[in-house]
Amino acid sequence: MTESPATDFHAERIQRLQAQLASDGIDLAVFGPSADLFYLTGFDAHLSERLNLLVVPASGQPALVVPTLEAPLVGDAARLASLHTWADHEDPAALAASVVGDIEGKTIAVGNQLWSAFLLRLQSRLGEGSWVEAAPIMRPLRMIKDAAEIEAMAEVSRRTDEAWEEFIEGPPISGLTETQALKRLVDLTEKRGLKVGWGICASGPNAASPHHHTGERVIQEGDSVIFDWGGVLDGYNSDVTRTVHVGPPSEEFKRVYQVVLEANQATFEAVKPGVPLQDLDRVARKVITDAGYGEAFLHRVGHGLGLEVHEEPYLVEGNELPLAAGMTFSDEPGIYLKGNLGVRIEDTVVCTEDGARKLNNATRDLVYMD
Amino acid sequence: MTESPATDFHAERIQRLQAQLASDGIDLAVFGPSADLFYLTGFDAHLSERLNLLVVPASGQPALVVPTLEAPLVGDAARLASLHTWADHEDPAALAASVVGDIEGKTIAVGNQLWSAFLLRLQSRLGEGSWVEAAPIMRPLRMIKDAAEIEAMAEVSRRTDEAWEEFIEGPPISGLTETQALKRLVDLTEKRGLKVGWGICASGPNAASPHHHTGERVIQEGDSVIFDWGGVLDGYNSDVTRTVHVGPPSEEFKRVYQVVLEANQATFEAVKPGVPLQDLDRVARKVITDAGYGEAFLHRVGHGLGLEVHEEPYLVEGNELPLAAGMTFSDEPGIYLKGNLGVRIEDTVVCTEDGARKLNNATRDLVYMD
Repeated sequence: MTESPATDFHAERIQRLQAQLASDGIDLAVFGPSADLFYLTGFDAHLSERLNLLVVPASGQPALVVPTLEAPLVGDAARLASLHTWADHEDPAALAASVVGDIEGKTIAVGNQLWSAFLLRLQSRLGEGSWVEAAPIMRPLRMIKDAAEIEAMAEVSRRTDEAWEEFIEGPPISGLTETQALKRLVDLTEKRGLKVGWGICASGPNAASPHHHTGERVIQEGDSVIFDWGGVLDGYNSDVTRTVHVGPPSEEFKRVYQVVLEANQATFEAVKPGVPLQDLDRVARKVITDAGYGEAFLHRVGHGLGLEVHEEPYLVEGNELPLAAGMTFSDEPGIYLKGNLGVRIEDTVVCTEDGARKLNNATRDLVYMD
Repeated sequence: MTESPATDFHAERIQRLQAQLASDGIDLAVFGPSADLFYLTGFDAHLSERLNLLVVPASGQPALVVPTLEAPLVGDAARLASLHTWADHEDPAALAASVVGDIEGKTIAVGNQLWSAFLLRLQSRLGEGSWVEAAPIMRPLRMIKDAAEIEAMAEVSRRTDEAWEEFIEGPPISGLTETQALKRLVDLTEKRGLKVGWGICASGPNAASPHHHTGERVIQEGDSVIFDWGGVLDGYNSDVTRTVHVGPPSEEFKRVYQVVLEANQATFEAVKPGVPLQDLDRVARKVITDAGYGEAFLHRVGHGLGLEVHEEPYLVEGNELPLAAGMTFSDEPGIYLKGNLGVRIEDTVVCTEDGARKLNNATRDLVYMD
């Protein structure tokens, strides 16, 4: 209890969650290891078959169920909740059930990413309650970033841009496998203090698969190559995509690149508070469809990001939620021509009071690499 | 359909699952992105908020629900199941519900790691069925490795050992942060073709926390340092722990090291078909307890591994399941003295027809590093 209540932002987030639970008529919420748990408590729990569970009642003290061997990881989060540890030979579901207590007639919100096995064990032990998703409650809390969160997002994005600028000034990628080229970029990103847990390098025909599994294909002259990667700093994620060309491009590639670039910019310019999120997808889709590539734009134009690489809000047809200052999300139109090429250009953008700001500023000009 | 039925091991695994479902009176099973899905189909699906779902009825053709943009990743698995794709603006839960069909009076097994959000959406759409864990059905399938799987485990373990041998012959670790020391070891592991997704370097007092988050503490003379890491090759995992000492150790450290080493060896020697899994934990615990450190052995002695780093079977008090040839698991006793030091020694072991075989053979002698 060294922090004063005024500066204990985790305690304040839990209070906001509890107020929301009370106003929605939900009796309690449970969360496993996840960004929700980290957001609420700062506890970066280990995701595994060993149950870690945060139980937050609409009023009163939260509880944490934690494996004994991972208790040292709880750290400062212990001030926010009563701690209930279990040893490997004990039954964590029984412990969690006793912590939750009687749920007859109650409504329990469940963190989205809790493994079904844990939910089924709780359902089978606790019986007649009503189980609902916690996402609608967590969405308004996590979706609007405060100034410190936006600063963290700006910094992780800036360092990722720096890694890209060094990468494209570096040695040729022709002759490398996708795995090798991606590793070079990841190393440049990690050199800047970021933790990198994923990345895509998709070359030539592979670039037409938006979520291609990076593999052993050798990059060669004539390829378009998509790099989609990001890192984590202080819990917050970057997520950038750039597409380069190895050697002189075809006219078709240049045209496709230009269309994607225009869609990326048009989307950015459409960002301001009050605009329905689906409108951003429509703006990008119109640019691409008008150019004749509508069928080749295989995904929504963007997703929120922050503590997770994909989180609310989603920029997709059907999402009528209005943009608000503090939302951070990707702007990533793409065109994918099967068996031939792919282009995607992605920046992280934050909605501000009067428009938008790009958190990524690595060059979007068409880059040729050897 | 280029593979003959005799060599299509995925089709054969699905048939075994279907036979088990039928014999257990379960009507169908559903799996999200997971080792279960990969084991059954070879489809290495992307885990995210976009629903990927395999639906396996007790008889008849399985179905795969997949996001349009990830359809290229399905690959050969498409021969095993009907494919149902959904675009980002469509509702995957509705599609999945239509694929599953009416469940009134039916029992549905759910893959352990399916996110609760997806289960709740299915439960809310499909209504009155009985939902159970799929783990008891998948356990007998995945727990006993066949010859090809054991060969894959041996190879990934061998390369991990090689990385360790090079690491301990390398430059001093004193003066490096935990993060830097771990990165050196990870790079040596990746150099051998393995993908490394996790690792622990815990130094000095941090070594007393079994699942320590590797951080910025600088390794120094007098530290015990635990390295616990592994890699993936062809889907199969290694998982090794070695503890080194920087500079001359105390008598206490040498004694603790010797006790853990004896517990590791005694556990290995107790492995043979028919022995209850909990007996292995008891063997290790007896060695450590007899030496006066029982309270400091904070976890079970081991866990199965294969397509996952932690999977069935668990070597823990209360698990009366008998050992069987083909089970692969860790043998990893540890002693953790809070604020002072920690020692863990971990090998992967396979149970054979007449005993056991160590898949890790990197030296277990006490290593001093500068």
